[in-house]
Formats: sequence, C-alpha cells, structure tokens
Amino acid sequence: MNTGSTAIILLSGGIDSATVLAIAIEQGYECHALSFNYGQRHQNELLAAKEIANHHNVASHVISSLELTAWGGSALTSDIEVPKDGLTEGIPVTYVPARNIIFLSHALGFAEAIGARDIFIGVNAVDYSGYPDCRGEFITAFEQTANLATKAGVEGDEFTIHAPLLQMSKVEIITRGLELGVDYSMTQSCYDPDESGNPCGECDACRLRTAAFAQIN
Amino acid sequence: MNTGSTAIILLSGGIDSATVLAIAIEQGYECHALSFNYGQRHQNELLAAKEIANHHNVASHVISSLELTAWGGSALTSDIEVPKDGLTEGIPVTYVPARNIIFLSHALGFAEAIGARDIFIGVNAVDYSGYPDCRGEFITAFEQTANLATKAGVEGDEFTIHAPLLQMSKVEIITRGLELGVDYSMTQSCYDPDESGNPCGECDACRLRTAAFAQIN
Repeated sequence: MNTGSTAIILLSGGIDSATVLAIAIEQGYECHALSFNYGQRHQNELLAAKEIANHHNVASHVISSLELTAWGGSALTSDIEVPKDGLTEGIPVTYVPARNIIFLSHALGFAEAIGARDIFIGVNAVDYSGYPDCRGEFITAFEQTANLATKAGVEGDEFTIHAPLLQMSKVEIITRGLELGVDYSMTQSCYDPDESGNPCGECDACRLRTAAFAQIN
Repeated sequence: MNTGSTAIILLSGGIDSATVLAIAIEQGYECHALSFNYGQRHQNELLAAKEIANHHNVASHVISSLELTAWGGSALTSDIEVPKDGLTEGIPVTYVPARNIIFLSHALGFAEAIGARDIFIGVNAVDYSGYPDCRGEFITAFEQTANLATKAGVEGDEFTIHAPLLQMSKVEIITRGLELGVDYSMTQSCYDPDESGNPCGECDACRLRTAAFAQIN
C-alpha cells in the first residue's frame, strides 16, 4: 500500500482512465486527476471525467487547456473525418501527434509542483496497439527522460510512470474496474458523438467498447 | 545545407533562442517559430519573440497558451519572489517544473503535424547549468523518447532535436548571433521587468546578460 503517497492520474473520461483511477485509489494513493481540454471534437469526455473524478472523491481535478488545434494533424483535432468502417491495420487517423508525451509532460510538471512522484496513465497495448504512444517502450523511455528533465529526478527523488493496463485486454480492464466500483455508465468512449452526446456506435472506440461489454454481459 | 527542410524553433524572446533561430536559418531550414504563453510573470518576452520572428521572416509563428500556473511551483509561474541577490549554487527557484519537456513535447506535436523532423532549442549547459532540462543528457533522452512516441518516429522518419548552443558560453553565443544578424536589442532576458518592460538589472538573467555584453563591448 502507498498510503500517504500522492499520485497524478491522467483522466480522459473513458473506460481505461476511469479504471486506472480506481486502481490507484485501491493502491492507497491520494489521487489528483488531470484532464485536458485540447480542442477535441466534443466536451462530453470532460463532463465524463468530472463525474468520474467526483464519484471517486479525488483530492483535486485539474482541467488544463492546451491548443493542439493550432497545428491539427488528427481527426480528433481538425476537420479530418473520423473513420466509421471498422478497425484497420496501422496507425489510425485519430492518432493525435505526440499526444501522450504532451499529456505525460504536463502531468510531470503538476506532479513535481505538488510533490507527487507517481503518475498513472491508462495506455493499453493489447486490444488496440495502433497508437505508438500506447506501448511499453514509450512509457519506459518517458520515465527515464522525466528523471533527467526535473529537479526532483536529478536529485534522486525519482518519478514512476504507472501503466497498469498495459498488458490487459479490454474485457480484463472492465472486469477489474467493476470489482473496484467503477461506474462505466459515466464513461465516454465515442470519438464523434452527436450534439446530445450520444455515441455514434461506428467509430473504432465505439466498436471496441461494444465488443468488450458484449463479452462481459 | 538543409534547403527544403522544415524546422520548429522554440522561441522565448531571449538571447539564446534568437540566436538559435538565426543558426537554423543559416543552415537552410524553413523555420516555424513556437512560443508559449504559460503564465510567465510578464508578456514582454512574447512581444520580443514576435519582433524577432518578424525580423527573421519566419514561415510562421505560433504562440500556444498553456496553463502551467494551475499548479505553480516556480518563481516564474507563481507568487514566489524572483531572487535578486546574485547567482547561487544548485537549481534556482526560477526553475519551472518540467518546462522544457513540456515545450519540446508541444514542438514535437507541431513538427509531426506539419511534416517537420527537426526541432531547435536554445538550451545551454555552460554559463548556467542550474536547470536539469538544459543538459545534453536530457536532450538526448528526449530525442529517443520522441521517436518512440510518434507515428513518424516509429515509421523510421525520425526527429532530431538540435541544441546548437549546448556547449557555448554566453559570449560565444552573442558573438555568433551578431555575425548572423541577430538584433539583440529586440531580445528580453529579465525574469521580473517593471510595468513598462524595463529589466530589473538584478535577477540571474539580467546579471548573466550584462556580464556577457560587458565582455563583448
């Protein structure tokens, strides 16, 4: 147990990060959630993140605004269309250039400023390995760089990047979350919901979600 | 020469980044400047960055807003006082937690989105080695992580982080910049200028600037 230790949890409002928050709480961390308003197509995921953060009584929830739309380059931050024809090989157009290194770097700044040395991120390389920044090699390299980039790191008070879902399937993730009291009705997966926030049911994120719950129920 | 290649230049408005911009231009790159409005104590450095970017006819200049003040932790982003008693040993309170890894990560996203594979940063480990994220070890580690974090990197179209000032003294930097047409009257170094933008003359940045120009003139 890590009672008395503080952690930063990257919280997107989806299945994975909600589960990671519950795992970090179970491990005894005082959890500070960090979400980003980065010009994503819809604000539903931030509303979901708020609801999840409240549900789990986090110590604080910071929503940080970033201007990733200044350069675009992704279906999630520009007018490129979200694909709805099913999962394909290779890195999808919903890839946001450098997103996880940007998010982790901000989490690192937040962590160092408040004295936290543990950062949790819900990346997962099994069910959906299309994104380069969801792989273990990236997480390991980031952790090493973080400890060279910071005052705390170079002074030997090192940061740890936790990616507890890395080797779990979506079904395993949801099963674990249900044991830990995650309310998945609060989570939001769709890349392209309608104006009322209803999921499209056809994007990659909707397909993965639906397939996973179908296996569990 | 790198004619036809595009580069991102992190441009703060100070002596070092202005010189780096001139070096990248001399090397033949089409240069896109990136500055950050991160809640620093004054906006003078952004005005300086704009003037420098125009002076060197950059292809574009993006000023990206970040909310590093959400967590503070530095004399530059909170109400901690800027020290004015002269340079001291160790990492100064003007250190902003994780700043350069955050800035480089954003530059990486910008670069990938527009097809640039070269990123220039004006870190300098000689005259002022107090900041952990101004060292060569950090730059090398970031470059490796960047190539694991991105679609381009994992596809073998790798990014290079250039830190041409790393081993130069402030006097060498200014001498080189003068050869390349940098107008240092446009640059801004002070951590804590008055309301009219006049430098305090007493913070570490002012002291280093004054000492360097005294040696050159």
